[in-house]
Amino acid sequence: MNYAVIMAGGKGTRFWPISTPQRPKQLLSLFDGETMIEATMKRVESLIPLQNQRIVTISEQVALIQQHVAKLEDSNFIIEPFAKNTAPCIGLAAVTLMKQDPDALMVVLPADHQIDDVKQFQEVLQRAISVVEQRDAIVTIGIKPTRPETGYGYIQFEREEVNGGIHRVVTFAEKPNRDTAIRFLESGEFLWNSGIFVWSARRIVSEIEDYLPELYAALMEMMAASGTEEAEERIRRAYQSVKPISIDYGVMEHTPNAYVVPGPFGWSDVGSWDEIYRLSEKNEDQNVLRGRVFTIDTHDSYVVSELEMPVAVIGMSGVIVVQTEEGILVCPRNRDQDVREMAEKVQKSRQQNGKRQ
Amino acid sequence: MNYAVIMAGGKGTRFWPISTPQRPKQLLSLFDGETMIEATMKRVESLIPLQNQRIVTISEQVALIQQHVAKLEDSNFIIEPFAKNTAPCIGLAAVTLMKQDPDALMVVLPADHQIDDVKQFQEVLQRAISVVEQRDAIVTIGIKPTRPETGYGYIQFEREEVNGGIHRVVTFAEKPNRDTAIRFLESGEFLWNSGIFVWSARRIVSEIEDYLPELYAALMEMMAASGTEEAEERIRRAYQSVKPISIDYGVMEHTPNAYVVPGPFGWSDVGSWDEIYRLSEKNEDQNVLRGRVFTIDTHDSYVVSELEMPVAVIGMSGVIVVQTEEGILVCPRNRDQDVREMAEKVQKSRQQNGKRQ
Repeated sequence: MNYAVIMAGGKGTRFWPISTPQRPKQLLSLFDGETMIEATMKRVESLIPLQNQRIVTISEQVALIQQHVAKLEDSNFIIEPFAKNTAPCIGLAAVTLMKQDPDALMVVLPADHQIDDVKQFQEVLQRAISVVEQRDAIVTIGIKPTRPETGYGYIQFEREEVNGGIHRVVTFAEKPNRDTAIRFLESGEFLWNSGIFVWSARRIVSEIEDYLPELYAALMEMMAASGTEEAEERIRRAYQSVKPISIDYGVMEHTPNAYVVPGPFGWSDVGSWDEIYRLSEKNEDQNVLRGRVFTIDTHDSYVVSELEMPVAVIGMSGVIVVQTEEGILVCPRNRDQDVREMAEKVQKSRQQNGKRQ
Repeated sequence: MNYAVIMAGGKGTRFWPISTPQRPKQLLSLFDGETMIEATMKRVESLIPLQNQRIVTISEQVALIQQHVAKLEDSNFIIEPFAKNTAPCIGLAAVTLMKQDPDALMVVLPADHQIDDVKQFQEVLQRAISVVEQRDAIVTIGIKPTRPETGYGYIQFEREEVNGGIHRVVTFAEKPNRDTAIRFLESGEFLWNSGIFVWSARRIVSEIEDYLPELYAALMEMMAASGTEEAEERIRRAYQSVKPISIDYGVMEHTPNAYVVPGPFGWSDVGSWDEIYRLSEKNEDQNVLRGRVFTIDTHDSYVVSELEMPVAVIGMSGVIVVQTEEGILVCPRNRDQDVREMAEKVQKSRQQNGKRQ
């Protein structure tokens, strides 16, 4: 059977003050009313029904996610004892699914990405599923780049098709600098790394055994412990020892069995305020304005208030001004990479204040 | 006897969101804990004791001012039925004082200006008082300009002294453009118009009779009505008919009896956010930071929060970010002249919201 494995581990300091530990990015409704995790689930529902969808997250997040997505049952969750990056998360999902269904096929999806053309996305995903069904491969979806983006990882592929629209992966490339990104774009041989994967549970566990033996051992210990009296404690301990590593570093860069299906649907990892601005509908001044906000002579800006208190912006261009109960952020769009540092600064001060009181 | 007449009519839209109709500029503590009106009163207290100080304001402001300045009694107030600019305000104060003390000498002071060197200010004021006592003149204090300011009115004076440090006024000049302001500064013949005046009550009433006969008639009607049964109604009606006009336009520009005493003390009318920034003490990044504010790579900025909610500013230079219960203002320092328009925009929307509810 086919399963969706939705990774919902985001901590969301990049979107302070809208996102917080209590409200990570996947639970935000950044575009059209729906939270990102709901949109992710709905997007694959025609291929994988809800009862076969699994959300992998830490236990603290389960109640929060259920608050936002009412239809979810406990059986829709796979609980990680700790957030440990994607390889442990995917490994845990794989061994958990295999226990229920040794032939489980997994579609791995980040919970907080944005896709423009859902129909095309579903077609590409169906093609990837077919490849996995036919040749038990490790398949990832690569996005046709539309600009020399320096914020994404890239996948280089062999020009020659293996099958209709399927290519062997040559290599995974880290976030490039601007010149390299331009070269990647011009070569026509590179795709953006979407973090969407399709494989059988058995196959990815076998790859983990080959390339991440310590993680494999921990996963086996967790499976062995499951159902015993000390299950909780043993599972915790096993997972605690696991090194946080991404599936890209841990497996994809090493395996010779990786294939990629290029996806021409619009995609974004929605990784920054500037990206949210880019993806949002703008008014005639190229502003995105939401809530009780007022502007005079302001352009190319993202101004959002979640409170009754008005936000007034005069004579600014290309800025982000966001007000929530958590606080107010004022930041040029091209400085949005500093938001994480600011969020940590504010949270640290809050903790210190808390201690003093 | 000598009296201080403190004009406290400010509406304060220029300092939105800190100032509001309920909290005009004279009631703000912009610099050091004291409200501007308190500082104004204290500054002249050694020359004019509290019981001889009069605050001229509309009745709605009396309770508000008393809230902030506890020591004030009802006898310290002269109530204007409406705010009508400085000539009616000063005329009303003059006729009111004359009734108590026909020989009253008035020192007229705006309630919301900032003075750096209080001792020097007191010396200059004492000199002006002496001149009025000796020759019953119309005397104003002019500030030695330190920059080609385009936001102030100017006073041209005769180079030759009439007396120690006293000059005849040649003319009053409106706010100049930049080139004219530079010419004024270079000529050495111009002073900033501080709005501080010294004269006998009798004398200014006589000047008003000459140059503003309608205002004079209204003031006489008000005095006649005072104490009668229909006093309140007659006084209101008389004052309502009065044209709002400044004492500069109405009297100073016409009278041949105007003298000016140059004041070398630092002075500001604190007319804009940028001016408040200029007058405030800055940290090593040339920032003025107050309240729960956080900055990364931010310079030359004024960031103030009155609320618990943190204000976080990243990568900005020369901006004003102010948060109060009224709202949040984000504005480059050199666009502060648009704050009034913004305040009106926000207030209008609030009224419309109010009506809809």
